[in-house]
Amino acid sequence: MTNWQSHYARRAARMESAEVRDLLAAFTRRDVTSFAGGIPDPTLFPTAEMAAAYAAVLGDPKRASVALQYSIPEGHPSLRAWLAADMTRRGTPCAPENVLITNGSQQALDTIGKLFISEGETVLVGAPTFLGAVQAFNAYEPRYDELPGPESNRTPDSFRGPNGGKPKFGYVMPEFENPTGRTLTLAERNRLLDFADALDIPLVEDSPYETLRYSGEAVPLLITLAAERAGGIDACRVLHCGTFSKSIVPGLRVGWIIGPREAIHKLILAKQAADIQTSTINQMVLADVAETLVASQAEKVRPVYRARRDAMLAALAAHMPAGVTWTEPEGGFFIWVTLPEHIDTTALLARSMAEASVAYVPGSAFFAGGGSRHKLRLSFSVTDEATIADGIGRLAGLVRSALAE
Amino acid sequence: MTNWQSHYARRAARMESAEVRDLLAAFTRRDVTSFAGGIPDPTLFPTAEMAAAYAAVLGDPKRASVALQYSIPEGHPSLRAWLAADMTRRGTPCAPENVLITNGSQQALDTIGKLFISEGETVLVGAPTFLGAVQAFNAYEPRYDELPGPESNRTPDSFRGPNGGKPKFGYVMPEFENPTGRTLTLAERNRLLDFADALDIPLVEDSPYETLRYSGEAVPLLITLAAERAGGIDACRVLHCGTFSKSIVPGLRVGWIIGPREAIHKLILAKQAADIQTSTINQMVLADVAETLVASQAEKVRPVYRARRDAMLAALAAHMPAGVTWTEPEGGFFIWVTLPEHIDTTALLARSMAEASVAYVPGSAFFAGGGSRHKLRLSFSVTDEATIADGIGRLAGLVRSALAE
Repeated sequence: MTNWQSHYARRAARMESAEVRDLLAAFTRRDVTSFAGGIPDPTLFPTAEMAAAYAAVLGDPKRASVALQYSIPEGHPSLRAWLAADMTRRGTPCAPENVLITNGSQQALDTIGKLFISEGETVLVGAPTFLGAVQAFNAYEPRYDELPGPESNRTPDSFRGPNGGKPKFGYVMPEFENPTGRTLTLAERNRLLDFADALDIPLVEDSPYETLRYSGEAVPLLITLAAERAGGIDACRVLHCGTFSKSIVPGLRVGWIIGPREAIHKLILAKQAADIQTSTINQMVLADVAETLVASQAEKVRPVYRARRDAMLAALAAHMPAGVTWTEPEGGFFIWVTLPEHIDTTALLARSMAEASVAYVPGSAFFAGGGSRHKLRLSFSVTDEATIADGIGRLAGLVRSALAE
Repeated sequence: MTNWQSHYARRAARMESAEVRDLLAAFTRRDVTSFAGGIPDPTLFPTAEMAAAYAAVLGDPKRASVALQYSIPEGHPSLRAWLAADMTRRGTPCAPENVLITNGSQQALDTIGKLFISEGETVLVGAPTFLGAVQAFNAYEPRYDELPGPESNRTPDSFRGPNGGKPKFGYVMPEFENPTGRTLTLAERNRLLDFADALDIPLVEDSPYETLRYSGEAVPLLITLAAERAGGIDACRVLHCGTFSKSIVPGLRVGWIIGPREAIHKLILAKQAADIQTSTINQMVLADVAETLVASQAEKVRPVYRARRDAMLAALAAHMPAGVTWTEPEGGFFIWVTLPEHIDTTALLARSMAEASVAYVPGSAFFAGGGSRHKLRLSFSVTDEATIADGIGRLAGLVRSALAE
């Protein structure tokens, strides 16, 4: 048995190692300043509180025997209840039956892809869009087309093509988007809902960075606006994906989908077939700490990340040559940089690592159908201000010399 | 947005609520003796040891910041290393690169289905077979055909049909099979490998109950036999799926696939797209306790489950009327009962719950292509001997009256 390739399904051709992943290896090289990752700073983790929560669950014999046992696929009742109450408090009445617990929001995207996409059908994403969403959806072999947004105003009718028919859903990260840092305005959100209403398609709202706003005013969630239009969450067309990975910690792998209970019911069956359920003990621990820690962590981490964002924006302004532009995110982890069109950021990366000791992610990684090669993503989440200033200075120097060649 | 049905992928038609799941609701009714579930007895869980392990990981600031952070998709290095060493100790030299960590063995099956099955292709399973495997594979829309086994001796050539071509892989649970309790002999394992060699197809060995042997002699794993034939694990055709769900506890959701590194590498990419990684903290905790707890739990739980198995076999022998037969498992949780052909166990279940206060799983749930309706699965894992004797007595009484009608 040597030729495994010959045994794989057709979809295996779309499972390839991501550039981002290979780059993350750069993290382990101490001499490289990495703006490539998108992970939270572990020095900000609420370690003592998490230790206390595990001890409390496992210290109570009755709760321990539940925490270590199988549970139900939809999620532990206490966590579903907390998430439903939290969504209700934020203005969208929501019941536990509107909630499915997943292994982080990545599994939320995989489960949605599995339920909605047959091979050859069309999914709408931004250009650029979140790489993880494309990786999840690729397993179900879609075509991609571009979701209307600030930079694309195609009419709904133009999406009723002969190839693959009407799109299956639109995917969007409305807050502090990965990779652009962009936040959709209220008007843009309403236009997106108008578009989805006109086509009668579901929208997937991916919202991992929601609690990480450093400036500007919060805009209502897409699911909130959709539920208001439809007369309630059960009649709305939005599936909202969330996670504790950025609001508390990522290592427990707990996220969720909130949406109309009819769709949630079917997603539960897909989740059950995929892995039975998310870790019981991790769900119980997060249900215990969520009420306190989501708020206290937001207070704790926002000033730190805000200072890093500001340091990166200031360094870009101080050092980048004319012709380079970048986004100014109100939250999240990412800044999206556009270089002059003739500079290929994928080709530049090797030089950046070798000559400037700086890692970033080339923009081409974020286009489902291939796209601009002169953009790049910077993350400011795990680097202190001085290191950011130095690293951006070196990167800007490299860009200057590339422009002079 | 009311018609969600119209938005789903084709595969959604194969995602339906399982009979087993609805039956599990019976668990919560105190007046019913349930032989329906297949879960471990939580009174046997190593709660103190698990509490100590979480405290140790989170009590060390350096380990805590790793445990609460994102990790790599293939699994935490310490856990991969322990599993590779354990497989090596058992006679099959294995490296960490031969191991992928999954969310229990259910996700192992889902990931294998995703990598190997395109719509309409054929997968070989037993008749009956494990329901969870069929649920996982169904998402990828296979046809099913029957894997040769003790009761089926079709030639390899008979599987090279015009519909769907050669099968993609064969799936089997060689030890204490769910639902039959059956264990394949060494000769049967070798015949299965001969068959797979002749067709040149992979075999998936699902081995959740391996540590739960109560009598008889251990038989070499399928992957061990295959690696011996092929000259090493990297050249063999078996993907071995394991889990801590029965050897330690299920609530952490940690399992694995062990196999040739070429296939494991591709499975890692599928796992990454599905949910990035399995919970870091749960992997680290299990890596810490596995060396001690896998062995000590086996010592602790075997006598308890053995006594329950023996009580159920004795009660069946004492109470069941002539014409009823059953398997005598050497381990695991299940006994497979065959009633006279005209008794439909699905129809009988409602009466069993109402008149005999006994729950079981009708055999029809375990046939991928539909099958015998006069069989049923009994589990002895969570019921004490006296309750087993009483419950089997009442069930036998019901079978007697059904036969007399």
